[in-house]
Amino acid sequence: MKLIQSISVAAMLGALPTLALAQDGPVPGVNASTDSVFIFNSLLFLIGGFLVFWMAAGFAMLEAGLVRGKNVTMQLMKNISLFSLAAIFYYLIGYNLMYPLGTWAMEGILSGVWGVGALEAVGVTADAADDYSYAATASDFFFQLMFCATTASIVSGTLAERIKLWPFLIFVIVLTSIIYPLQASWKWGGGFLDGMGFLDFAGSTVVHSVGGWAALVGALILGPRIGKYKDGRTIPMPGSNLALATLGTFILWLGWFGFNGGSQLAMGTVGDVADVSRIFANTNTAAAGGAIAALILTQVLYKKPDLTMVLNGALAGLVSITAEPLTPSLGAATLIGAVGGVIVVFAVPFLDKLKIDDVVGAIPVHLFAGIWGTIAVVLTNPDASVMVQLYSILVVGIFVVVTSAVVWFILKATMGIRVSEEAEINGLDMAELGMEAYPEFSKG
Amino acid sequence: MKLIQSISVAAMLGALPTLALAQDGPVPGVNASTDSVFIFNSLLFLIGGFLVFWMAAGFAMLEAGLVRGKNVTMQLMKNISLFSLAAIFYYLIGYNLMYPLGTWAMEGILSGVWGVGALEAVGVTADAADDYSYAATASDFFFQLMFCATTASIVSGTLAERIKLWPFLIFVIVLTSIIYPLQASWKWGGGFLDGMGFLDFAGSTVVHSVGGWAALVGALILGPRIGKYKDGRTIPMPGSNLALATLGTFILWLGWFGFNGGSQLAMGTVGDVADVSRIFANTNTAAAGGAIAALILTQVLYKKPDLTMVLNGALAGLVSITAEPLTPSLGAATLIGAVGGVIVVFAVPFLDKLKIDDVVGAIPVHLFAGIWGTIAVVLTNPDASVMVQLYSILVVGIFVVVTSAVVWFILKATMGIRVSEEAEINGLDMAELGMEAYPEFSKG
Amino acid sequence: MKLIQSISVAAMLGALPTLALAQDGPVPGVNASTDSVFIFNSLLFLIGGFLVFWMAAGFAMLEAGLVRGKNVTMQLMKNISLFSLAAIFYYLIGYNLMYPLGTWAMEGILSGVWGVGALEAVGVTADAADDYSYAATASDFFFQLMFCATTASIVSGTLAERIKLWPFLIFVIVLTSIIYPLQASWKWGGGFLDGMGFLDFAGSTVVHSVGGWAALVGALILGPRIGKYKDGRTIPMPGSNLALATLGTFILWLGWFGFNGGSQLAMGTVGDVADVSRIFANTNTAAAGGAIAALILTQVLYKKPDLTMVLNGALAGLVSITAEPLTPSLGAATLIGAVGGVIVVFAVPFLDKLKIDDVVGAIPVHLFAGIWGTIAVVLTNPDASVMVQLYSILVVGIFVVVTSAVVWFILKATMGIRVSEEAEINGLDMAELGMEAYPEFSKG
Repeated sequence: MKLIQSISVAAMLGALPTLALAQDGPVPGVNASTDSVFIFNSLLFLIGGFLVFWMAAGFAMLEAGLVRGKNVTMQLMKNISLFSLAAIFYYLIGYNLMYPLGTWAMEGILSGVWGVGALEAVGVTADAADDYSYAATASDFFFQLMFCATTASIVSGTLAERIKLWPFLIFVIVLTSIIYPLQASWKWGGGFLDGMGFLDFAGSTVVHSVGGWAALVGALILGPRIGKYKDGRTIPMPGSNLALATLGTFILWLGWFGFNGGSQLAMGTVGDVADVSRIFANTNTAAAGGAIAALILTQVLYKKPDLTMVLNGALAGLVSITAEPLTPSLGAATLIGAVGGVIVVFAVPFLDKLKIDDVVGAIPVHLFAGIWGTIAVVLTNPDASVMVQLYSILVVGIFVVVTSAVVWFILKATMGIRVSEEAEINGLDMAELGMEAYPEFSKG
Repeated sequence: MKLIQSISVAAMLGALPTLALAQDGPVPGVNASTDSVFIFNSLLFLIGGFLVFWMAAGFAMLEAGLVRGKNVTMQLMKNISLFSLAAIFYYLIGYNLMYPLGTWAMEGILSGVWGVGALEAVGVTADAADDYSYAATASDFFFQLMFCATTASIVSGTLAERIKLWPFLIFVIVLTSIIYPLQASWKWGGGFLDGMGFLDFAGSTVVHSVGGWAALVGALILGPRIGKYKDGRTIPMPGSNLALATLGTFILWLGWFGFNGGSQLAMGTVGDVADVSRIFANTNTAAAGGAIAALILTQVLYKKPDLTMVLNGALAGLVSITAEPLTPSLGAATLIGAVGGVIVVFAVPFLDKLKIDDVVGAIPVHLFAGIWGTIAVVLTNPDASVMVQLYSILVVGIFVVVTSAVVWFILKATMGIRVSEEAEINGLDMAELGMEAYPEFSKG
Repeated sequence: MKLIQSISVAAMLGALPTLALAQDGPVPGVNASTDSVFIFNSLLFLIGGFLVFWMAAGFAMLEAGLVRGKNVTMQLMKNISLFSLAAIFYYLIGYNLMYPLGTWAMEGILSGVWGVGALEAVGVTADAADDYSYAATASDFFFQLMFCATTASIVSGTLAERIKLWPFLIFVIVLTSIIYPLQASWKWGGGFLDGMGFLDFAGSTVVHSVGGWAALVGALILGPRIGKYKDGRTIPMPGSNLALATLGTFILWLGWFGFNGGSQLAMGTVGDVADVSRIFANTNTAAAGGAIAALILTQVLYKKPDLTMVLNGALAGLVSITAEPLTPSLGAATLIGAVGGVIVVFAVPFLDKLKIDDVVGAIPVHLFAGIWGTIAVVLTNPDASVMVQLYSILVVGIFVVVTSAVVWFILKATMGIRVSEEAEINGLDMAELGMEAYPEFSKG
């Protein structure tokens, strides 16, 4: 996502006349090829955007499948609510924070609920094409929003089965209004990390590690589930529905084509569409590499392959390739993804050893593989500096850890973040929501 | 969907030669930009169409999740069958009824199973581009079909758990062959409501209220489920699988980008793609508004947030923005959707008070929010007249209520529409189909 | 998929300079229309490719829903692993075997993990547009890969509930590296079947029958599940989750628009997009025809409609139209699909009579309906010769049967392909993986 600030600048160049819409063909005399570039770029954002939207469903299914039956309704509730809140608060606050140069300056472009104008005037005509040489503002907003929402989705899985609904949702509001957009502006808003040469194509650091750091801090402050660590042993708490978890993984895999492919930010030239194509192929093979690495490794280590590790391996492969899905060859992309899968297999028991209870494995997948992916950029992209990559990982990490910790502590001190022991044991669904996800499927 | 009749007219202008296909590039001398407009428009229909197709899966999952376990197989059967029948009968009868001016006059364009020609000749060359200045007929047909099928999907949820399979499917045939296409032609076929200035961009009235009215009439004639209303109280009959219901909601949300975005009917100019982009953003935020409104309202009213209300709130937000997804600002779209969410929270118990048994809440979501959305057009679109909107809602409502009632009564008098008391108590799956959806998950 | 070899040839015409990328508009003087054709074609591959990717999830859900609860984790594991292996091995070996003329000759285009180059250079500029007159190599690779993976997905369902994980995965490696690509090259790589005039638009034979033959041979060598055939009777072993199976069917239906529509291989002209549109419409109606045929037929034959037959009927309709989704009228496409549905209803008990145990019905759907679809080409495409179609079906069939049998026998002789009797009775999930898919839903 390297060009993102240009959209605002381009939009600033001209007035936005609201004229009648020529719907049945281009106006003669207008540069047709410029039209096409604009349309292709916007279309990439729309297709990429709806694919990344679909990832919200993927997280919901993955997490609902990996929690125990008594907490499924709550997990579903958290997922649909967090996405909805992200949509509203990224619009109200986040998007403006993330791209301050362009948006603050343009009256009416994005002015919250109080303004009458939004995005751009209805029925922009082809005459105005020169003013719109890049892509539709709304298509960019739609695409960017989905990235912000993804960051929030990452947090919900780690903290499942014990965090209260409303404090979690308030954290989501702060995360999507302020924490995510501020640090994202450092790279994608043309800020200081971008100026230093930090490379993070689609957000191994900007999206995934941010969600991962916020989840890690939350898990530390919240503590593990009751009974998870006992007498030095980790007690398995198997997910209630692995079919759902697998579905969620496939949904995320599909959505990732939009996540990485759309981050090319342009599709209107031969070069851009060829790059988008390579990103699709590399993204896919990295996921495959992560899955197969976890499959082989769990077979070797435990003699029995572990499906949840294979699912998380695929996801870790996807996170690993996200910082640079373009420059690697197919072989390199497969290996970068495979390393992600290996990380997951070792990191999950490692976190358990530290008594950090991450219900779905989001910290290994999004934080650890995100760090790995950000560093791995230097392997294939000669423009990357390993020091800048490390520095940026650190800066973003410190910022998110500190701000998240502040928010979590305030929430803990004021309203409390953890459900009662009784509610946790009986399950959040009945205790907090009064509604079971599977009321007829009796517990074994 | 304001331009729809133009496709037929455009297609009438020329003969349809079947020539060899130039696949490796445009023919020199042909206006390339016109080509692009045609291709972009057709592509919008194809992408929009497959997204709306996906909504059929969304309805199936939503409804399968909200019925009790003993009726799940039947609900799945009804959903896949109704979509298939809609596909066949909209082709055989409905599409021709809906766009009579164009299609009756063109021999071979769409002539049912009896004709040899279909849609348009294979391999239309670029030489014929002048005759095809808008979009491929088949892409339009594919897109329109999905809207017709959506209307039928709405009905199945309300009448679940007690209606017989075959009478329901016969109703679907009448609905998709005649009832839906006739009233749709009044607006989208260039009929009298369109002439009066009725505005319904993607079908809050034409699609959603029609499905809702048909469901309401069916529910009244069919009566409530056994045991639903007892001694003045409403007995809860919880859905068997809320993970599935949530998945269905996410699927519908995704599909709605195609539903509303595709209804721009054109993407080949800067103005059109910018409008499609705004529609995507507004559609998304309206759903978010509906979900959050229902979340907050059920928290306030019942102290416990209700997941099924949040899901239906999101859907009501989507229905509410469907009549006008283009002119509202993001803030206005959020609020329009939020009102939809509020409507659902109050309408569900209201229907129960009237002993109208709507198993999945389709009447509040599609009918009530559909009416609200149709009226809400006047809030942001200066071309809308509140009287014309109300008049159109009324005309369509009366037409659908009367015709549906006639069909339901005929079905009731001839073959009966309700399963036996015994079959209903034991569940339709074993009684009518001899097959359980979850044979191994014992009842609690 | 008739043009596939041209991509390699086109790519051979020029060198691949790695230049700076012009992302904000086309370079002046470059032929804009050629650009658009290239972009549209590549975009068709990308959209088609992600839709066919989605079919992998469809197979996973369909199969997980149709096996018994004790084997669900294993079925999920097989599906995600087979896709991942297909992705890796089609890249390492298969793609090169399938298109040997182009790829062997081009150093660096696709040279496995050992080469540094992959697909094409990053940032191909518009100046190089003449060298890329068709589509991005990576978009084609991405699309082709998904077809190879689909072939492997077909096999896993038939052999479910009794085959060991690793021998199955080794078979998948051979299938996707060698068996599939070799025979696919005969048609789509410009081989001898293509030269004879064999017509198989999107792979009723090349993909579906190949998967079906491999599954049939595997089923014969593996034998039926314990207790399936007893005293001359077939013992029903109902699927554990029909909601999941229905979801899988809808996913496959959706993915098929990409499968058949993408196989037009071009979308950059009016003629091509019109053809893609007709393919979408025909594909949809064929599925509907198959579903309704199975619905009516099972009602008539058994008095109770059978949901699993309706699902498989829809899939058989899709397979049936795959060899020729373009030339039929909508009516003819519906009927071709309906015959597929009829085939399934009769073929499932027929296989049981032969004691061939096909857990999900993949042989009727993919092999029998695939043969029917390949023959049905002659009904609507005057270029097809029934003798050539039959000959090609036979040649491909013999090749796959022989090679599959060799691989299965080697696997059986060396590592064994069947789990122990005890493991089979207790379920593969606990025996082989130590992990249940639904640990909390007690068995009835």
